[in-house]
Order: sequence, then C-alpha cells, then structure tokens
Amino acid sequence: MRVVVLGAGFGGLTFCQTLDCPRAHVTLVDRQNHHLFQPLLYQVATAGLSAPEIAQPVRSILRNRRNITVLMHDVTGIDMAKKNVQLGSSFLPYDYLVIALGGVTSYFGHPAWERHAPGLKTLDDALRIRQRILLAFERAENSVEAAERERLMTIVVVGGGATGAELAGAFAELSRRVLKRDFRRIDPRQTRVILVEAGPRLLPHFPTRLSTNAAARLEKMGVEVRTGHRVADIGDGILYLADGDRIQSANIIWAAGVEANPLTRELGVDLDRSGRIRVNPDLSVPGHPEAFAIGDVALVQDGNGGQVPGVSPAAMQMARHVARLIHQECGSGNANSDKRPEFHYRNKGTMATIGRSAAVAQIGQFAFSGWPAWAAWLLVHLIELIGFRNKSAVLLQWTYSYFNYQLGSRIVFGPENSVMSPVLRRNNP
Amino acid sequence: MRVVVLGAGFGGLTFCQTLDCPRAHVTLVDRQNHHLFQPLLYQVATAGLSAPEIAQPVRSILRNRRNITVLMHDVTGIDMAKKNVQLGSSFLPYDYLVIALGGVTSYFGHPAWERHAPGLKTLDDALRIRQRILLAFERAENSVEAAERERLMTIVVVGGGATGAELAGAFAELSRRVLKRDFRRIDPRQTRVILVEAGPRLLPHFPTRLSTNAAARLEKMGVEVRTGHRVADIGDGILYLADGDRIQSANIIWAAGVEANPLTRELGVDLDRSGRIRVNPDLSVPGHPEAFAIGDVALVQDGNGGQVPGVSPAAMQMARHVARLIHQECGSGNANSDKRPEFHYRNKGTMATIGRSAAVAQIGQFAFSGWPAWAAWLLVHLIELIGFRNKSAVLLQWTYSYFNYQLGSRIVFGPENSVMSPVLRRNNP
Repeated sequence: MRVVVLGAGFGGLTFCQTLDCPRAHVTLVDRQNHHLFQPLLYQVATAGLSAPEIAQPVRSILRNRRNITVLMHDVTGIDMAKKNVQLGSSFLPYDYLVIALGGVTSYFGHPAWERHAPGLKTLDDALRIRQRILLAFERAENSVEAAERERLMTIVVVGGGATGAELAGAFAELSRRVLKRDFRRIDPRQTRVILVEAGPRLLPHFPTRLSTNAAARLEKMGVEVRTGHRVADIGDGILYLADGDRIQSANIIWAAGVEANPLTRELGVDLDRSGRIRVNPDLSVPGHPEAFAIGDVALVQDGNGGQVPGVSPAAMQMARHVARLIHQECGSGNANSDKRPEFHYRNKGTMATIGRSAAVAQIGQFAFSGWPAWAAWLLVHLIELIGFRNKSAVLLQWTYSYFNYQLGSRIVFGPENSVMSPVLRRNNP
Repeated sequence: MRVVVLGAGFGGLTFCQTLDCPRAHVTLVDRQNHHLFQPLLYQVATAGLSAPEIAQPVRSILRNRRNITVLMHDVTGIDMAKKNVQLGSSFLPYDYLVIALGGVTSYFGHPAWERHAPGLKTLDDALRIRQRILLAFERAENSVEAAERERLMTIVVVGGGATGAELAGAFAELSRRVLKRDFRRIDPRQTRVILVEAGPRLLPHFPTRLSTNAAARLEKMGVEVRTGHRVADIGDGILYLADGDRIQSANIIWAAGVEANPLTRELGVDLDRSGRIRVNPDLSVPGHPEAFAIGDVALVQDGNGGQVPGVSPAAMQMARHVARLIHQECGSGNANSDKRPEFHYRNKGTMATIGRSAAVAQIGQFAFSGWPAWAAWLLVHLIELIGFRNKSAVLLQWTYSYFNYQLGSRIVFGPENSVMSPVLRRNNP
C-alpha cells in the first residue's frame, strides 16, 4: 500500500510519525530538506535565534522509520484521477494521498509588493529579512546623509496579527537594547519601528482586552502602533497609506496575509478564496476518499460555525485524525469514506509574545497577559520544539540573551552580503 | 591620533583589543560584520557546526571600547602617500595604518577553476560547500541513473594540507556515520571521498611520521589518499590529473592554496609571489614607518631562515607586537622606525584534526597523534574561541555529535536551495 505525503510541516511530519500501518510504504515529499519550527521563525528574522536552532533535517527525524522514504523535491503536479504525484520528470503513484503543503505569503492580488516588502514563511525569508535589517544599520553607520540614515533606521511591519506583533516587538528590542552600544555614529535607539494594521485592533483573534494590552505594551517598548491604516501601495523603500500618508523605510516587512499553497488551484476541487480545499468532515477531499488535505491547505469547520485556525496544533490534530483513519483501513487497503469518524478540533489555546516577559495568552476561558503568559509561551514552545539539540540550544540561547541582551545570531552572510552595490563590488576584491 | 585597521580577522581584532593608547581614535574596517573563527570553518562546510557558532559580530566584541569605530565596508583603495584609505566614495585619513586583510583562495593562475571547485575561506564559502554536498545526496536519492548517482556521491578534496585533510576526514564521517541511516534508495557509506595532493605526502608542515600517521588514519576512515598527483585541469564536475587519470565528481573542493588579499598588489610595495608584503623586522612596510602589515598579508622571517607560517597564533603575535610599538609612540604620536624592537615569532605548535578522536600535533619537540592530540586540539580551540556563547554552543554541539553521530547543521537554505534547476523551479510554486 503506497501512501504519499506532500509537505514536511507540522501536519505532514506528525502524520508520518503517528501512522501505524506496517503494510504502508510511505513517501514524504518536501521542497526543503528540513522541518521548520514556524512559531519561532520571527526570532530568526530578528537575529534572536540561528537558522539551525529552529530547523531539523526531516531525514534525521524519520531516520528510524524504515518504511518511510523522504524525497527532497518540488511537487510539479498532482493527478487525482490517475492517482499519482509528479516530481519533475518522474511520477509517484499512490493509494492514499495526504496533502499538507501549508501556506504561502499572500499579497492580496498585489504580487508586485513582494519585491519591496518580503514576507516571512520560510527560513530563506527569515534570513533575508535579518540580513536586510542588519545591513541597513551598517549602511546607516557608513552614511553621512541624515535623510538616508532615517530611511535606513525605519522599520515598518505590515499586519497586526501574531506574527506582525511579534516581529515589531522583537525589532524594538533589537534596536533599543541589543544594538544600543554597538555603534558610534548612529544611535540605534532612535530607530523607528512602525506596526501598520488595517483593522481596528491588533491580534484580532484574541479578546479585545488582550489586544489593548498588547498595543499598550508595544508602545511602551517604542513601537508606533497604527491600527485602522490600510496600505494603498508599496514601492521601493516607501509605503503609501490609504489616508494619503507615506512612510520612507528601507525595511518594510509584510506580515499581513497567508494563503494556501498555489498547487491546490490545479487540483480541480472546490476551494475558498484563499485557495484552501473545502474538505469533508473526515478531512478527505470531496470525490476522492483516498486523498486528504490537512493543515493550512484545508478549510475545516470547527463545529461552532467558525473555522479551524491555521495554527500548528490544528495541523497536528488533523494529521493524527487522518493517520487513525488510514490505520483502520490499513488491513483492507481500500479507501472507504462511508463510516469514517468526523474530525473534531480541540482548541488548546493561543498565544502571542511581544517581548521580554511580555505575551498574551488565551487558554479555554482564561485570557491573561504579561509575565505568566510569557512563561507559558516559553514553556509550551520549548516542549513542542522537535529534537533535543534544538531544545537545549534554544534554551541556552534564550537564557543567555535574556540576561545579556546579546543576540548571538547577528551574522550577515549570503549573496547580497555587502554594504556596497554588487556593481561597485565587482570592481574590487 | 587616527589609527585605521583593515580587516577584523585574528590580526586586526587582536590589535584592537590590545592597543592601549587613550589618544588613539581607532577605525576598524571589514567587508564582513563578523569575526570568523577560521580554524573551525571546515566544520561548517561539513555540517558539523552552524555558521553563528564560529562567527561573532565584530561590534559586539568591541562594543565596550568607546574609542573604536567599526565600519562594515569594502576597502576600495589605499593611498600610502596621502595616508588615507578609500571606502567607496569616502576617505579615511590615518596617522597609523594596520593592514590585516588576510588571505584569499589561490588557484595558481587558473581562476576558471573556481567555478567548478570552490575554495574555503569565508562563511559564504563554507555554506555554499555544505549546501552543494547535502543537495548532491538529495539528488542522488532522487536519481535513477547509476552513473549519475556515482558522480553525485563522489567528493574530491584537492590539497593535502591541514584544511584538506580535515575536510576529507569530516566528509568521510559525514557519509559513513552521520548520513548512514538517513536514505532509503542510496547507501551514503558508498560515498567516495578522494584526497588529491601534488606533493609526496600529506601535511607537509608536519614531521614525516605524522604525515604517514594521518594518511593511514584517513584511509582507515575510508578516504582514498592520492599523494603525488598533480591536477592538470578542472571542468564542470570533472577533475583531470596530470597522469591522464580523470575523476567524475559533482563535489570538487579546492583546498590547495592561499595567497594574500589582492589589495596588496595596488600598494606599490615589494611583494613575494603570493602577494605578501615584505615587511621590515618591526613589521612596518618599507618606506612607511606609519604603516604595518600583519598576518597572512605579511612575509616575515622567523629567524631560523624560514618564514612565519600563515596561522592565527602568528597573526595574533604580530598584532600584539604592533600594538606595543604604537603604544610606545602614543605620546609623541609621530611614527619613528629607528629604535623599534624587532618582531620575534614564538611557535607554540601546530595541530590538525582528522576525525573523531584522531588528530596530529607538534608542540615544541613533541610530535604526537591519536587521542591525546585530538584532546589537545579540542581544548586549544575551545579556549581560543572568542565569546562565551560560541564556546558553550560549540561544546554542546560537539558533545552531542560525538555521542550521537547526529550533526545538527544539515539545513539547506540559500539561493540555489532546490534539487531542481531554477528554470524548472520558476514554472511551479
């Protein structure tokens, strides 16, 4: 029995780890060679953690499961009629398919904005943002023009959701605390960090009290919170707001939207506006009992008229549900959606961190913030982190940073690793 | 008094840390924002350590020295007559100049080879090599052609010096031990690791006994040691040896030569073949008592008719010597090479590691190998590592790897981070 899993995120990986079916030959396909701990990605972008601390090679996680083959490859097509997945020139036939391709940054029909305002979904995104911000400070230290320096020392985060709030808070700390004493010609504490949100409040998924709370805390940290401001356009180093206001900034980061992996649009199945597959209650794709969609590519009702949020715990719960279903059909091997149990989402709570000992959390009926929320956040994330090495390294890193305000991952490397233009660069060693 | 230091390697950084002259306004210029612990760079290339573990932001190292300004910039020119350094469009005048620009990979007049056989000098080099090797294994797992797989699973290291031996040994361990159980279609233990050296023996700077010893150990680890083989030419994925033999390999790494930073050639001073400045006994540049050259850009006699080797301890000793000289002239502020003491190199010994509990070391009259040499190597490097965070992180990493054969930094990211060609890639999400 051939099971093909697309995507090694929380959904795909959890499925592979929980599927209990000796007869199944599982093939896990991902374009990356690593599983990414998304919830901490913003810390790589803000130089709090290094890339390997939140990423783990998929192979080493699954190395002891001999019935699982991992392929690092781009999925170039899915033929649900012929039941096979295309990887470039080769094909992977399947009896069961688990689509866990996750989401990508969405610019709401403005693809041109991506060039000027990078999003934060992959490790490369995070490293690009980190490099961009750190180089901006270096360029400011080299610059003699006041206006130029101001542009370089202005950071704009678009989107007031959890990621946006976390980024803004972390950038404020980076400039106000970490880089404080590092420069001689500029004062990093004068860095402007602006958080732009179109809606009336930050963290819309949290109770109003926590939103107010988070906004107050961010402002106390030096972040300019601008709720109710819609973005009209984004150019190279400039943000145009709907109210006519414009902000000059060399560091515009997009944290406003996510949509399902575009591959879903080629399946010929029913999708919602953001490309998510409208799955059956058992998470199978309508008309395809052998195919399932889980995580950010699936649109699932939560039973209370709402939708299951695109968070890692939800993806993991869906993964376990599908693993159980296939386990039950493991003996026979033929997909049968008749008497399958429905998926039920259990909301274990949501959290967002804003900075040192500052976070907001909602667990069941309890909504709390500040130190306790932060402690809870830290605990939960450390426990969830896959792989001992990462856990200990991250803990070490955090403890150290917490007491020293010394972020360790402020290393600039990569293709555009120069304060000079590539052109100038070529002319000298 | 204006002191300009070019390069934040072991020489430049040590100079900044030891110079004791309140009147001096020091400006340290480097094209990178980090100090690199070169001796462990090969471990980043072989996925043993992550980049931040061997790199430290120069600013955070010098943050408490208020009289030192750090500029991240390319040096575009040095005018020794006008006594200023050019950084793009701006100029840095100096009273004292310390040239510590270090070395670059040398292809001995075959610049075309660089494309096919990357060298290992910078963090970017190491990450590129790591990405290349790891992607080669991924491609092999995807491939169905035996010949293609063989080409992808052959690693050639050119140059049998310390770096070459260390790389070959680490690649052998990576394939034989670490990746052993990670793949299903290929067996990484069948990876060929070939070490090519033109000279009669490996580690020419060590006693013959240790060379023999190292070669034997490497072969025991599965490395094909080919001494006395000169490289005739290098093409895309193919190495041509002078004896007519040719080796097909997707992973050719160049560790055969180093030369001084090309900037020295524009100074109009006397250089040796590899571009090193023939300095005076006090390390000043002939005709320029206010300018000094230290580390890999300086050609210094060791007193026994030999030359001071291009190793970090030598660069640090030179740095301290120059710092003392300038300290003595600090009061007057005018450079005077008449009664300056000469520089004397104290060889504290050299080491090279080959693999787990395997190394060779020569300290004074003692030449030893195996476990004790390895322990000594580990101790020395941990002590030398700048910055607590790095030390502890590296120690943690090593201890963990040692007992688990699990290298943590096997994360592939970067521009060419795909097993597919960029062309194919563009056509799908």
